[in-house]
Order: sequence, then C-alpha cells, then structure tokens
Amino acid sequence: MKAIAVYPGKPNSVHLEDIPRPKVADIPDGKGVLVRVLKVGVDATDREINDALYGNAPPGDKYLVLGHESFGVAEEVGPNCRRVKQGDFVTATVRRPGGSIYDLIGTNDMTSEETYYERGINLRHGYLTEYFVDEEEYIVRVPKGLSHLHVLMEPMSCAAKAVYQAYEAQRRMKVWRPQRAFVMGVGQIGLLTTLVLRLKGIEVFSFARSKRGTLSSQIVEGLEAKYVSTSETPVEQVVKEVGKADLIVDASGSSHVAFDSMKALGHNGVLIWASITGADRKHEISSDKINIDWVLGNKLLLGSVNANREHFEMGIKDLALAEMMYPGVIGRILTNPVDGLDNYRELMRLLVEEKSALKVYMNVAG
Amino acid sequence: MKAIAVYPGKPNSVHLEDIPRPKVADIPDGKGVLVRVLKVGVDATDREINDALYGNAPPGDKYLVLGHESFGVAEEVGPNCRRVKQGDFVTATVRRPGGSIYDLIGTNDMTSEETYYERGINLRHGYLTEYFVDEEEYIVRVPKGLSHLHVLMEPMSCAAKAVYQAYEAQRRMKVWRPQRAFVMGVGQIGLLTTLVLRLKGIEVFSFARSKRGTLSSQIVEGLEAKYVSTSETPVEQVVKEVGKADLIVDASGSSHVAFDSMKALGHNGVLIWASITGADRKHEISSDKINIDWVLGNKLLLGSVNANREHFEMGIKDLALAEMMYPGVIGRILTNPVDGLDNYRELMRLLVEEKSALKVYMNVAG
Repeated sequence: MKAIAVYPGKPNSVHLEDIPRPKVADIPDGKGVLVRVLKVGVDATDREINDALYGNAPPGDKYLVLGHESFGVAEEVGPNCRRVKQGDFVTATVRRPGGSIYDLIGTNDMTSEETYYERGINLRHGYLTEYFVDEEEYIVRVPKGLSHLHVLMEPMSCAAKAVYQAYEAQRRMKVWRPQRAFVMGVGQIGLLTTLVLRLKGIEVFSFARSKRGTLSSQIVEGLEAKYVSTSETPVEQVVKEVGKADLIVDASGSSHVAFDSMKALGHNGVLIWASITGADRKHEISSDKINIDWVLGNKLLLGSVNANREHFEMGIKDLALAEMMYPGVIGRILTNPVDGLDNYRELMRLLVEEKSALKVYMNVAG
Repeated sequence: MKAIAVYPGKPNSVHLEDIPRPKVADIPDGKGVLVRVLKVGVDATDREINDALYGNAPPGDKYLVLGHESFGVAEEVGPNCRRVKQGDFVTATVRRPGGSIYDLIGTNDMTSEETYYERGINLRHGYLTEYFVDEEEYIVRVPKGLSHLHVLMEPMSCAAKAVYQAYEAQRRMKVWRPQRAFVMGVGQIGLLTTLVLRLKGIEVFSFARSKRGTLSSQIVEGLEAKYVSTSETPVEQVVKEVGKADLIVDASGSSHVAFDSMKALGHNGVLIWASITGADRKHEISSDKINIDWVLGNKLLLGSVNANREHFEMGIKDLALAEMMYPGVIGRILTNPVDGLDNYRELMRLLVEEKSALKVYMNVAG
C-alpha cells in the first residue's frame, strides 16, 4: 500500500513508499485495532522532519512514514478489544512508552528518557498511509458528531494537556481561579488553547502580529475572546489597561515572546510554554527585574509537550462542549485539504509556502 | 522601651527609638501573646530597608522598627490562647493577612495583593525591640531542644516553603522522586535548602564561588552534600560528569545564575528561584535552546517567597531531624552575635561589611 515517507537525515526526501499492509494480528493478545486512514493533518514537525532537522527511521528500515495527526475508522478489531469496535471513528496517540516510571504508569508524555518513540516522528512509522495497526491502548474513539473536526484531535490533545498541567501544578495553591489569560500566537495551538480557556469562563486576550480581519482573528472573536494585533497594540499596553494575566500560554513559535511573556504575568500566575523554536537565537532580558518579580509573586512557568490518552479524551470532551457553545467555529481551522496520497508534493508545498493556512491535511480516503 | 528603627525613605537612618511597651490585652478576644524578645537575626532585607530601597512605617508612625527573624519567650498569654503557654520559646511569622482569598485561608505568603503587611519590613513594626505582642495565630512554638538555633526559624521557614512548593507543584506528575539537586549559593538560604534536600535523601551539589575551606563549605560537607567551587569547576562540568539535576534551588542572589540554571535542569525537573536581586541588570540568554529544552522536557520553574505558619512548623520539624542526623552542623550558621539593642551600629556594620558572616544577630536579652 502507499505511504508518504522521508529518508531521515536527507533533506527534502519526501516520497511515496510502497509498504506492506498491516494486519490486526500483528498486535499480540488480540488487542490490535486495524485502522483505515481517512485523513491526516501535518504541521511544523512534519516540515522539519522533511528538512532533516530530526526524525529517525524505525530499526531495520531506511524510511520513516510521516504523519502523527490521524483520523480513521476501525476496520477490524482484535478479539480482546473492549473500548473500540469495528466501524468506530478513531484517532491515535503519538508517543509510545519507553522504560521510565512515567511510561509505566500511562503518562509517556512525561517520559524522563532522552529517546522518544513517536509515530511519524521518531523510530516509529506514522499515519500518512492507507492503513495502520496499533494496540487498543493507543487508539481513542472520536464521537460521530465530532468527525467533521477529524485531524484536530491530536493538536487539541496538546492544548488540553498544557492547560491541564497548569491547573495540576497550581493545586499547590489550594485555590486557583484564574480570571484573565493571554495567549501568544494564533496558529492551531494558540486557537485551541484559546478555546480551552474560554470554555473555563476565562477572559482571553489572543495576541498576534497580523491586523484584525484574518481568519484567525475571526475564530478568536467567534470564541468570544479578544484579538489583539501586537503591530497596533503592544502587550505592555494591554497590561496597562487591564492588568497582568493569571495565565499565559506561549504558542508563538518565538523564544523571544516566550521569555518576554514573563513580564506580563501576575501574582501566583502560570506561564505555559507550548511552542518550540529550532534555531539558536539569543535574547537579552531584564534578568534582575524578572527575577525579583517572579520570586515576590510566587510565579510559575512550565513547558508542555505531547499528550497521553487522558488528554485526547479531555480534548474531545472540550470539542464537544465547543460545538454546543460556539457551533461551527473550530471547524474553520481546517483550511487546506489535499486529496489523495499521490498528491504528497502539494501537501508539503502548502505546508511550507501557504502562510495563511491554519491547518493543512490530506484526505487519504473518502 | 528600646527599639531599633529606621525612618523609611531616609537612607542610613537606623537609630534607637523609644516606643511604648505592648500589653497582651492589645490583642482582642484574649488571643494575644506577649513575647519577651531574646534574639533577632538580620539579613539583606534589613540592610536594604536601611538603604531606603523599600519599607514603609505603619500608618500614623514616622519610624519602622526593624527585624523579622524573631526568637523569644512567651511572657504572658491571653485567656483564650490554646497553642502557646507562658514560658514557651517562640518565634513569629512575618507577613500578616491582606484581603485576598489566599490571606483568608491562612496562606498569606501567597497573597495576590500588591501590598504586603510584613512585620519589620512593610507597614508593621518588627521585632528588634524588648517586647512585642501578636495574635497566637502568628506565634509558633520552638521546642526547648532547638532553642540553640533561635533566629534560624524564619529563614528555615522560607527554605521549607520553597522546597514544599516544588513538591506540591510536582503532584502534577503523579510520581516524582528527585535523585539529584543543585543548590546555587551557600548563604543561609542555600545552606538551609541544602539541609532540607539532604534530609529527603537527595544527592546535593552546593555551588559557590569561594574555594573549599570556608565555613560554608564545611557546613555543606557536614550535611554530606558536595561543595563545588565554581571558580574551579563550572556548573557545566558537573552536568557533564553527573548529569542534569532533577531539582535546582537558586539562592545565589544573582539573576544571571537564576537564568543560567535553566540550562542545568533535567527532564521533568523543577527550578526554584528563592533569592532576589534589587538592581536592574540585563542578561543575554540562549532563548531558543532553553525554550525547546524546557518544552520537550516538561520542565517547571517557580518563584518562592515568605512562609506561613505551616512552613515554620515544617522547618522546625526538619531542624529537629537535622539535630539527630547532623548534630551541631546547622548551629554553625550562627556566626556573628552582637549584644544589646544599644549596639545597633555594630549590628548594621557587621551586616554590611562582614562578608564572611553567615548570620548576624542580636542578643536582645539573656
């Protein structure tokens, strides 16, 4: 069957690979789920793997199948599956366990090992193909009523995890009821965290460089959040007008913004870093001021990456609530479909060149 | 009675003030404790208040009595006191509640208000006098067997809080068993956090510029921690040899060290900022590298200041264990006593000039 793959280490090696079709029996103990792939989303990670910035093939293979944002239908399930049945819409988690205590207790998103086993990213093939099989443990049901949001399940799980981790860390406070949040960046993670926070009743200001009128700004406003163009109104101005934030999510893709956000956080607040930057830029900061301000205000920063099945389930619950509260808004993130695995070059072209795209994804099957 | 006070806003205004002696009945509902002051410690905060960098007098007064590290004996207790009895050795917490939810639930160290009410620091008189009175709620008993550690109760409460907050935040991990810690700085807070961590069985590396042989380095080694002189062995070298740390406490008093410590933290680790810097120094950091490293490693930073009575009690428990495990070691922090309130100039001179002093304190009464 067809698969979109790269040769890890070789820049721009994306190609169509012919790979064997998996069987449900490939997974032991009757616990396998064979998934017919319907759609797969791509993001900056796929782009960087094709740029050979990271990514490794599974042991024994020369190629790595791309794609970690999956959506499909359970075509066949092993006899000992209990959660998923044939015909269910499903998505799949990305990381597979290593050997640390965090992997053993089902929180492999928190692995303390240096090596990650991630489908479509590192040492495990991804989902940009016709079929895949995996253990039921890593397959998450998508309700029929959310099938129109298909490839958003994985990015949504990352947004859900990031905010959940902040609340978990803040249990240190005994009481924590954030009122005002800033979200830096209005890419998919920025928009999805804006959603998660709005569903908690938090007043959200979403910051981006572009002026109002973009699709992102319309989605922000559709979620009853405030869109702020930093080219017109700098963050400091908003702080002057409304005060510092109780919670800030950095999804800007800029480490300068990530650090500068430290200045906009209020007492007992949490700054979540949810985006990364692959380069080696430096930044000069007001280290004394931030240091004293963060100590006297008991402030907290956390980095968040990946998600386990619990976060996929949280994300799905939030998407369900979103469709009740803001019907049709989140689906607008799904901007750029490409039909058929044969069109992999167009998929990558859109991913690299189409700056207005919020989500590029492939319709693998109808 | 005599008190050591400053005129807030006027640099180097430390002087002897004659103030009224308080009565147990000054506190309503029979809940007062009148404390005869035995000893009071001073630290950088007292120095900076005398430098007029901050500090305000209580409403109606022109002077602020200094001193927030108290040790005394309960001379008289109100009829409705239940925790403290006449003759008990006691210390007192520093911050008094404002109006935020955190103040209302007994965690005024986490107040979300901008104004702090702190005895000896801001808007409330301190303990560098002959007697003080306060509500029993803010008076903490010191066991007789720990009376030789007297003025260390307050700094110990800050060390206990900082480490406790890290563990509380890490409940987000479900399991967290840090193995290796770095402590930056070997002043009193650095030494006391080294102690707290050692009592948890954690391997501790304590970093300071001075070469081995100082009293600090002897105390570190007395706690079975490893003293590292950064003038001989940079932090990066230790990381190369033993790996990154699961927990780092910055008690260096340098915001450069505070930020640079971010690079030495391992996966799922916590960096605690426990010291502050009053200047306005800038610092250039590798923002991209730290950003990606912190996100992929799910790392956490928290600022910690002050302590509530729960932390005083934790600190006292740890000091008791310390005397069982490392008898006589912690008392060596108490380096520089000054006898009598009349000698306030010598107290301030030692605080400012005696660089080798770990703890300057006043013997107010015998």
